[in-house]
Amino acid sequence: MASVTVIGIDPGSRCTGWGVVREESGVLRLVDCGAIHVKDADFSARLASIYHSLVAIVERCAPQEAAVEQVFTARNAATALKLGQARGVALAACAAYGLSVRDYPPTLVKKTLVGVGAAEKAQVSFMVGRLLNVKVDWGLDTGDALAIAICHLTMRRFEQRAGLGKK
Amino acid sequence: MASVTVIGIDPGSRCTGWGVVREESGVLRLVDCGAIHVKDADFSARLASIYHSLVAIVERCAPQEAAVEQVFTARNAATALKLGQARGVALAACAAYGLSVRDYPPTLVKKTLVGVGAAEKAQVSFMVGRLLNVKVDWGLDTGDALAIAICHLTMRRFEQRAGLGKK
Repeated sequence: MASVTVIGIDPGSRCTGWGVVREESGVLRLVDCGAIHVKDADFSARLASIYHSLVAIVERCAPQEAAVEQVFTARNAATALKLGQARGVALAACAAYGLSVRDYPPTLVKKTLVGVGAAEKAQVSFMVGRLLNVKVDWGLDTGDALAIAICHLTMRRFEQRAGLGKK
Repeated sequence: MASVTVIGIDPGSRCTGWGVVREESGVLRLVDCGAIHVKDADFSARLASIYHSLVAIVERCAPQEAAVEQVFTARNAATALKLGQARGVALAACAAYGLSVRDYPPTLVKKTLVGVGAAEKAQVSFMVGRLLNVKVDWGLDTGDALAIAICHLTMRRFEQRAGLGKK
């Protein structure tokens, strides 16, 4: 099986977590991860910062595929609008590099990593560390992003085994 | 006064209106306008289409500044999330070309064009045609986008006259 590098992104209007994971012959390896914190007073400038940071990460880590969490709902319309814009920027950064983006429901991400759909974020982060065989020294948003990348690699493997091929 | 070219964008998850207007010595001229219709089944693919179309437009028309409508609220969280993502993509496309983006409340856009904040879309479109001295042969989303561009050029002129300079 050829190797593949995936970027997982957990977009947010204040903090966008990201994590790049490489799978080679079934072995997962952490390429790089982090969180983009934006503080500009102007919201458009904040979105531009997220965009430029993500483009720089994609250029540097050269992932072939991208994955984000599905968002179904938000607390209210104002929150949804902010989250939506951050998510749109993240998807545009992937599109700019021709990356296909898959999205997964948060419960599936947790179930894939921990076995239950209602796992705590800290538990997800712990399992990410175990699977990548590294010490967890990242924040929860970064942990979430890495979990999404690992979930995508897992689903991808299932689909290939099932002969569905990747979408 | 030097000339300036502005792109106005009215983002939407199905239809994104855009209009490029040039001002030279106080005279407005329509550079180009249109609407990006996206129909992909996959929402991420739809956002990618909007991104690539806008980037192509910005490359071709070479605006120096961009303007969008401010969005305060939406009918519900699901609508806000979709609209937010389309808006985020539009802002990212501008950011990719280093364009500063200003946003204006819809009522200000209407007031600048028609004189009242609660004008109908068709009336706004009609005034856009008058100001640009062209026949209106565009849809309402495109008319809105052109109105935003003209509103930005108007506010810009006010600010320069008031000695505030552009932001």
